[in-house]
Amino acid sequence: MEIKLLTIKEDILGANEAKARMNRERLNKYSIVAINIMSSPGAGKTSLIIQTINKLKPTTRIAVIEGDVASQVDAEKVHQQGVPIIQINIPGGCHLDANMIENALNDLPLEDLDLLLIENVGNLICPAEFDLGEHKKVILASTPEGDDKPDKYPLMFSEADVVLVTKCDLMPYMDFQFDNFFRGIARVNPAVGIFQVSCKTGEGIEQWFDWLLNQMKDSKAHPPP
Amino acid sequence: MEIKLLTIKEDILGANEAKARMNRERLNKYSIVAINIMSSPGAGKTSLIIQTINKLKPTTRIAVIEGDVASQVDAEKVHQQGVPIIQINIPGGCHLDANMIENALNDLPLEDLDLLLIENVGNLICPAEFDLGEHKKVILASTPEGDDKPDKYPLMFSEADVVLVTKCDLMPYMDFQFDNFFRGIARVNPAVGIFQVSCKTGEGIEQWFDWLLNQMKDSKAHPPP
Repeated sequence: MEIKLLTIKEDILGANEAKARMNRERLNKYSIVAINIMSSPGAGKTSLIIQTINKLKPTTRIAVIEGDVASQVDAEKVHQQGVPIIQINIPGGCHLDANMIENALNDLPLEDLDLLLIENVGNLICPAEFDLGEHKKVILASTPEGDDKPDKYPLMFSEADVVLVTKCDLMPYMDFQFDNFFRGIARVNPAVGIFQVSCKTGEGIEQWFDWLLNQMKDSKAHPPP
Repeated sequence: MEIKLLTIKEDILGANEAKARMNRERLNKYSIVAINIMSSPGAGKTSLIIQTINKLKPTTRIAVIEGDVASQVDAEKVHQQGVPIIQINIPGGCHLDANMIENALNDLPLEDLDLLLIENVGNLICPAEFDLGEHKKVILASTPEGDDKPDKYPLMFSEADVVLVTKCDLMPYMDFQFDNFFRGIARVNPAVGIFQVSCKTGEGIEQWFDWLLNQMKDSKAHPPP
């Protein structure tokens, strides 16, 4: 039974990777940079996306894909920012996959976009296994979750291209020790960039905007083949 | 492909339920009350378990099963409380299942226990689908996660026998609106008990102890057949 399951899982992941490659090629054709944003529930993915739209909208054409098990709570908040948005609901599911993203791309005005922000389902485990065709993976870890998350969810943190420690305005009320967090990250992904931010106060968020703008500059300067 | 997957999922869930029933019958034989504690990562499951052991240890024989993707961080903290503990690590997994609990029960001194606390993997989605053989399911929702979680993760909250809103000491620094949270719960599980607690200050936590003691009293007064 176990061997059978493993085979099927490999088939699923193999098919997903093929589809993800197609998505990435399609995005490259339009010079769109796609970012897969992942975290636990309530770590602040939607707040980060809204701040990012507010900051970059004057210079950057942005669209958003919202992944949720249920509800359109986040999509409605993002929709108010006046950018194209696709809501994906996955009843009984626990992560986005490349097939869902392909369907969403069919409904987006690709020729009019520079940046695609994909908010994955709130889950620090399952989304890590599924390439969506994005260019970079961003992991949020909020200070109230505690400083031990990289040790407890190593796959997710090992996959990250950048880690944002969010809700840093709450630090005075938390037992969160940055040293412990950094040591945990160093064990699974020593070279990754870590930004400390608060979407509430704006603290540290310029680093994130700069990083994002650099991804888009690199993409225009060195377009993939 | 989709139909094939569904069949296998049903097989897995069916086999899991049969095993869960066996676990429950085995626990009943020893008059042990088993509680399945679930939440997002970092909502305070381990803190709640440690507080519970400290309070009830003088009168109650407690054991703990710790479920984690990786690491023994939580198990080490709980181990210091001097109760029997089994760590289950599930690399590549995202929830406990009845089979894992059966194996853990084989290693616990069942004849010397009143209460079994099972800390599930930090995940607000996948654990909801798997009966472990527990008697009650407890869901923690921490105030920093936001008040919209029942709408966004309806299955988990619909399965709860009791909901604990944790980290209530952080309320002054949060946008968490209890009214919104209660309305969300009312939509998916209107009869469920909700306790507002802080493991840091001890606020509200007596309600949780009383509830737990009542579960054990009920179990002794009306032992399952």
